[in-house]
Amino acid sequence: MITNLLEGKKGIIFGALNNKSIAWHVAEKAHGQGARLVLTNAPVAIRMGTIAELAEKTGSEVISADATSMKDLEALFMKSMEIFDGKIDFVLHSIGMSPNVRKGIPYAEISYENMLKTLDISALSFHRILQTAYKLDAIREWGSVIALTYVAAQRTLAGYNDMGDAKALLESIARSFGYIYGKEKHVRVNTVSQSPTATTAGEGIMGFNALVDFSDRMSPLGNADASDCADVCITLFSDLTRKITMQNIFNDGGFASMGMSQRAIEQYRKSFDECPDK
Amino acid sequence: MITNLLEGKKGIIFGALNNKSIAWHVAEKAHGQGARLVLTNAPVAIRMGTIAELAEKTGSEVISADATSMKDLEALFMKSMEIFDGKIDFVLHSIGMSPNVRKGIPYAEISYENMLKTLDISALSFHRILQTAYKLDAIREWGSVIALTYVAAQRTLAGYNDMGDAKALLESIARSFGYIYGKEKHVRVNTVSQSPTATTAGEGIMGFNALVDFSDRMSPLGNADASDCADVCITLFSDLTRKITMQNIFNDGGFASMGMSQRAIEQYRKSFDECPDK
Amino acid sequence: MITNLLEGKKGIIFGALNNKSIAWHVAEKAHGQGARLVLTNAPVAIRMGTIAELAEKTGSEVISADATSMKDLEALFMKSMEIFDGKIDFVLHSIGMSPNVRKGIPYAEISYENMLKTLDISALSFHRILQTAYKLDAIREWGSVIALTYVAAQRTLAGYNDMGDAKALLESIARSFGYIYGKEKHVRVNTVSQSPTATTAGEGIMGFNALVDFSDRMSPLGNADASDCADVCITLFSDLTRKITMQNIFNDGGFASMGMSQRAIEQYRKSFDECPDK
Amino acid sequence: MITNLLEGKKGIIFGALNNKSIAWHVAEKAHGQGARLVLTNAPVAIRMGTIAELAEKTGSEVISADATSMKDLEALFMKSMEIFDGKIDFVLHSIGMSPNVRKGIPYAEISYENMLKTLDISALSFHRILQTAYKLDAIREWGSVIALTYVAAQRTLAGYNDMGDAKALLESIARSFGYIYGKEKHVRVNTVSQSPTATTAGEGIMGFNALVDFSDRMSPLGNADASDCADVCITLFSDLTRKITMQNIFNDGGFASMGMSQRAIEQYRKSFDECPDK
Repeated sequence: MITNLLEGKKGIIFGALNNKSIAWHVAEKAHGQGARLVLTNAPVAIRMGTIAELAEKTGSEVISADATSMKDLEALFMKSMEIFDGKIDFVLHSIGMSPNVRKGIPYAEISYENMLKTLDISALSFHRILQTAYKLDAIREWGSVIALTYVAAQRTLAGYNDMGDAKALLESIARSFGYIYGKEKHVRVNTVSQSPTATTAGEGIMGFNALVDFSDRMSPLGNADASDCADVCITLFSDLTRKITMQNIFNDGGFASMGMSQRAIEQYRKSFDECPDK
Repeated sequence: MITNLLEGKKGIIFGALNNKSIAWHVAEKAHGQGARLVLTNAPVAIRMGTIAELAEKTGSEVISADATSMKDLEALFMKSMEIFDGKIDFVLHSIGMSPNVRKGIPYAEISYENMLKTLDISALSFHRILQTAYKLDAIREWGSVIALTYVAAQRTLAGYNDMGDAKALLESIARSFGYIYGKEKHVRVNTVSQSPTATTAGEGIMGFNALVDFSDRMSPLGNADASDCADVCITLFSDLTRKITMQNIFNDGGFASMGMSQRAIEQYRKSFDECPDK
Repeated sequence: MITNLLEGKKGIIFGALNNKSIAWHVAEKAHGQGARLVLTNAPVAIRMGTIAELAEKTGSEVISADATSMKDLEALFMKSMEIFDGKIDFVLHSIGMSPNVRKGIPYAEISYENMLKTLDISALSFHRILQTAYKLDAIREWGSVIALTYVAAQRTLAGYNDMGDAKALLESIARSFGYIYGKEKHVRVNTVSQSPTATTAGEGIMGFNALVDFSDRMSPLGNADASDCADVCITLFSDLTRKITMQNIFNDGGFASMGMSQRAIEQYRKSFDECPDK
Repeated sequence: MITNLLEGKKGIIFGALNNKSIAWHVAEKAHGQGARLVLTNAPVAIRMGTIAELAEKTGSEVISADATSMKDLEALFMKSMEIFDGKIDFVLHSIGMSPNVRKGIPYAEISYENMLKTLDISALSFHRILQTAYKLDAIREWGSVIALTYVAAQRTLAGYNDMGDAKALLESIARSFGYIYGKEKHVRVNTVSQSPTATTAGEGIMGFNALVDFSDRMSPLGNADASDCADVCITLFSDLTRKITMQNIFNDGGFASMGMSQRAIEQYRKSFDECPDK
């Protein structure tokens, strides 16, 4: 099936580091649906990753921008509108980083300088993007903005540290700004809450493998991967979801609505098995 | 933009009474996206409504079925598979009726015979449909089933009577069966929670007009209408949302995430204005 | 610490079967806080259990009542007001039973006759109690009504069958009737969502032991037991919570807000250990 | 009824400015239940308010502390343990301030320096208090910590600005730290979500009066006031709620579970009335 759901639409994709990134998959699929794109990331992420490859594949330009710098963001939106010769239809925010997680500082001992950085990079960056676009009137009526999030915003995961708090803040910003952008310009703002995925960002979390296995067994459809997430983003960027806003959409194979699955509890039970005597 | 998101897919649509019905719009849009359809409703609804017109427009067959009769449902699914020469890809449940609402019996005085009927027609019918499809293995792998619901499942609305309870039960059934159908057949089951819409069904609720106005002013994007809802159903029937299951998707212009909007509070304030002395 | 939080208050406790019942503990603690009680249960439960012992301990009368019979409920409330020489201050609903669970019928194969019975006994009984009290004006202003529930109302648990749906319906009824009883008589209606507890009722659920272990390891404070639950009920019956209504209070050691704990994931990891070669 | 629910317990109360403050009422009621207290606030709030009066009434000491200063907080906890000659049983956090609200800067134009201050003062201060107590092992096993919050954490309120985001972050911190403090020391951490109350802090929000009226008409029991909130805090500080943690308790007369009440919609309808022609 070939469709052109995003025909004629123009979007900015934040956060594609390499081909494991969700943002990478979103860019590929959006391009496949007929969209034109600008790709952006922080200078250091551009150096470390392989975004140039994605740009070539999708015929996109790469514009370096630090998502905590209003100057960078303003330049990014101005430049993008120039490239597109018009306003932007959609934006993906896939940005998150915790210095506390990176440095292995436990949550009960975190430095607040670090925590404020986590919040600034992972959540306020979303407000900055929205504020910049809003001020420049850079997003077309009925445009769509998405940020990626995780169930840690609702439920505590050991070792996820201050990223859970950052995601809760991010989802709140989506609602708060979604209200304003909605009533003023009919722009919708949502978050997509994704299964734990083995991205470069995810690798920083302790015990991640067992968690991914548990999550997969708990979810009747199994974990959603980056490609699944990209598909959902396409529907939210398209004109078919114009009245969905200020929502958090779980794309997780059912995990968020599960208390306990048979597969997970059966595996769990095995943990009590004793090895047979020789 | 012409797309063919449901090309080759076959679906059963429950609940199209007339062109104000959400199910009617879903059928039209699904057909427009390339799907083949079977339309169904209770015998009395078929007589009272204009479903034949929809059938003609969409090249569909109409099969009469009482959604509380397992015999009818079995015949419906068998016949549909025969018509389609194969399994079904998607199902829409848009069924709700409360004898207590109809007869104007207040919630604190309801008869339980009536309430059990409300639950049976509005919620258990969804389980019956799922059980029938599951037993007959009538839905293709990664198929999609949707039931329409309302925010009354989460928050009490004066006059909505036992329909709020029925919707809460309906959403729970979507989760409970969604788990089983997901793990066994990768079939996903979701609900779409829609703005109050001026359908024939909605007209039964007291004070509906003021509520619709309030809801519209509260929602940054305004109320979602039947056509908006149909669009969202298309995305959920499509292959782009294969890992979303057991979810309740609010398609309501932002209402569910609003505490108070400026437009609604400004209107509310006017209620305290006094008429000037003559 | 000796307190008399319920001094002068009179309550009706539904559902004490034996000393493992949560209702039993609530009765003991309410009595300890100065309340006078009427104990009630279905005739068969009175015969099977040891409620007479509880009645003696707490100086209460036992009145047999089938919670699905309006006649029985009316007699119960009339008789209770006679015994108390006045209105009732609080009511506990601890009633749940699923013929489908009892008979081991899987959720995807349930009979709807059974399911309607599950709903009638486990959820509509709560409406019946509230309607009866409301009609007889049997509950004093600012009285308090509680029903016990479980997280299965929000998240699906394998094997919990139609009890999850019944609990979702029960919680909805608490909200719907809570609105009416609140505005008319300032009576508050809440539910308490309790950790899985090894009661006679819980024993019917498959794989219950592993689930209880998992739940305990997930909960930072461990599972809440019947005595903990009784304590919370005391606070909700007391005058200290007069503006809390239509709420579902999780008394579960933190479980409902956990995504994954260190203790649970460490245990889970052990399930992948292989026995050493001999 | 005289009870001594907090007999022998010692607590620290943050945020009592004057007798309109919720914290003031909590202090009075906790004292009335037998607790010994230390009162604390920021130096400027101590100067502006009348905390000395409260200290005298409750026989408490006042210790000045800036809740964003780890040095101040450490001194506060050390000094309090000295005064109490032992560990602390409970803590109330009632702290919130947004420079953006104060300066009337709209949410879509806020400065991030301001927003980070809002988050630091209103949310990170809670983490700082918890971290300080945790490091000093200052809270007794099964102690209880509460922060006050508002439904704006879940639903957007026009004009509430970045305080909604701050409250969402605050509630997330309660969960995240609640997990750690729970598993390590059995200390529980909860938030109480209160009706809008006409405190000095609330006065800063635009259109507050109409909102308070609407909220009151929506809530079947009417808005909860500071005294109601204090009662609920007493129950959460007491030993009767030892397994409740990581929860957000709505003490709001039912508001959070309401979609629309008869009283509110009737008032709303009046807004459409036209004045009679002369």
